Amino acid sequence: MKIGVLGLGRMGGNIACRLMDADHECVVFDTSSEAVDKIAGEGAEAAAGLAELVEALPQPRTLWLMLPAGEITENTITELAPLLASGDTVIDGGNANFHDDVRRAEMLSEQGIHYMDIGVSGGVWGRERGYCLMIGGDREQAERLDPVFATLAPGAGDINPTQGRSDELDPRAEQGYLYCGPAGSGHFVKMVHNGIEYGMMAAYAEGFDILKNRSAEFLPDNERFDLNLADIAEVWRRGSVISSWLLDLTSSALAEDQALDEFSGEVADSGEGRWTINAAVEQAVPANVLSAALFARFRSRNTPSFGDKLQSAMRNQFGGHVETHND
Amino acid sequence: MKIGVLGLGRMGGNIACRLMDADHECVVFDTSSEAVDKIAGEGAEAAAGLAELVEALPQPRTLWLMLPAGEITENTITELAPLLASGDTVIDGGNANFHDDVRRAEMLSEQGIHYMDIGVSGGVWGRERGYCLMIGGDREQAERLDPVFATLAPGAGDINPTQGRSDELDPRAEQGYLYCGPAGSGHFVKMVHNGIEYGMMAAYAEGFDILKNRSAEFLPDNERFDLNLADIAEVWRRGSVISSWLLDLTSSALAEDQALDEFSGEVADSGEGRWTINAAVEQAVPANVLSAALFARFRSRNTPSFGDKLQSAMRNQFGGHVETHND
Repeated sequence: MKIGVLGLGRMGGNIACRLMDADHECVVFDTSSEAVDKIAGEGAEAAAGLAELVEALPQPRTLWLMLPAGEITENTITELAPLLASGDTVIDGGNANFHDDVRRAEMLSEQGIHYMDIGVSGGVWGRERGYCLMIGGDREQAERLDPVFATLAPGAGDINPTQGRSDELDPRAEQGYLYCGPAGSGHFVKMVHNGIEYGMMAAYAEGFDILKNRSAEFLPDNERFDLNLADIAEVWRRGSVISSWLLDLTSSALAEDQALDEFSGEVADSGEGRWTINAAVEQAVPANVLSAALFARFRSRNTPSFGDKLQSAMRNQFGGHVETHND
Repeated sequence: MKIGVLGLGRMGGNIACRLMDADHECVVFDTSSEAVDKIAGEGAEAAAGLAELVEALPQPRTLWLMLPAGEITENTITELAPLLASGDTVIDGGNANFHDDVRRAEMLSEQGIHYMDIGVSGGVWGRERGYCLMIGGDREQAERLDPVFATLAPGAGDINPTQGRSDELDPRAEQGYLYCGPAGSGHFVKMVHNGIEYGMMAAYAEGFDILKNRSAEFLPDNERFDLNLADIAEVWRRGSVISSWLLDLTSSALAEDQALDEFSGEVADSGEGRWTINAAVEQAVPANVLSAALFARFRSRNTPSFGDKLQSAMRNQFGGHVETHND
């Protein structure tokens, strides 16, 4: 199939390459001509702008947007719409808010343009490992684009089938891609995926922090341990209940440098963690762990927080405690 | 090697079988003669009591205890100690509190008896997959027992080596077993492992709860999704950032029955989750996510909680709100 790829960053560039590795054709565009040249060097047809990209595609056209969520994606879709024809499909593979997907799908459908929201997980490893795809939008278009999704997904590989009644499962889920439902549902599932990711990362992080601090001098001699975090991460990968791909990555990072000196410890967040909590609030679902993980990220970027200062101020007011500053 | 195994429940029985599958010899005892008969049927030598078990073992003896943590383990060790000789080794493979390990190791060392605490992860799947072993105690005894640990551990299998500087790692960690340090350290590492497990389980649980509740009737029509949780668990196993062994199990459970009707939703906890939080408090390490996961388990067993009633009482006091009871 011949498809257009807009946005050739770490995700979009690798998606185009994985498609071309499987003999799909890609027409590509990015505002960075360097990024375009790089992917053209891998066999893609370069477009100098949106109009040229649209013209280079056969109808019905398929355009895969892999752009930063929010304004850039929004503006690109607004600019693209008048260039497209009825029957064309616009895919947003970025991390859009699902409310935006619902709105865009309705807007584009007035022109007969199909809109699909696809949550893509796999990070920088996806070109090699494949991407887990969570697909929302018209079911008919999902069927038409099945060869594209099958190429991008990891396939069954050497992962064991699920035990029990696996005949109940969608066979495509076992290949790593899933049609989730109407517009918005793909990004909704991806949003929750990322919310869970935050929680899992924080669970590992807190656990390793407890292991590391078991060597603190104030602990009793016979209960102070000098634990090797890299070896512990490694052994947990093998046969333990908490083995995971995130633990594989954690083990690699700790094997590289157990002190993690190159990191400041400030943990960024993109929108999905926040939207997951918004959804939990909207639906009245308790999310103690996912919210704690998100709030801990906020806290990591804010040392000391205003809230900390406020607590020092209160302790001073009621008890005359003057907090020392640990510099 | 010939070793004694005391306690033939789901863990101990399978440990004896995995050892015998690899041509180690086991002498076994359990207070349930049915459990003893079962493992004797798999080739073990049955002992009618502690004294008989001790007599059947060559010196230096190795006794692997796989008993419920706390009183039962404690009493068994107290009863065993006078039957043993200098140079023998007692292994506690249960989920003891590491403070108890430190105390027991000191107590037994007065008789020249070695004590080892080994955290064992792998659950009911361990006989087939192998057990992840976290080992504390005398390093010399850990060397002597290396063939036993190598048998019980999963081995490198088809798990990829860690990326980066994996030459920095203990090669035994890559086989799934690790000498962590002196007495208590094995169970300390296992304790934190279980604390992380609680956090990860809660992260998945909250995420799936949010997915499930996206079909709620009060949501806007175009933002209400009817998501298939079993398919979503399955697709996340393949290429996503949150793939893990726990997710594999989750997928099996949801494929079996998406409504999970057979479960009450009351989540038990054994000691390790609580002790992990105790350690975090003792070491002054923030554990927002791990404590939220533990507290959510407490809450799951207590509907409505006293705290909930207290909040209703306060709302009634200040606002005259009379809470309805959702029965």
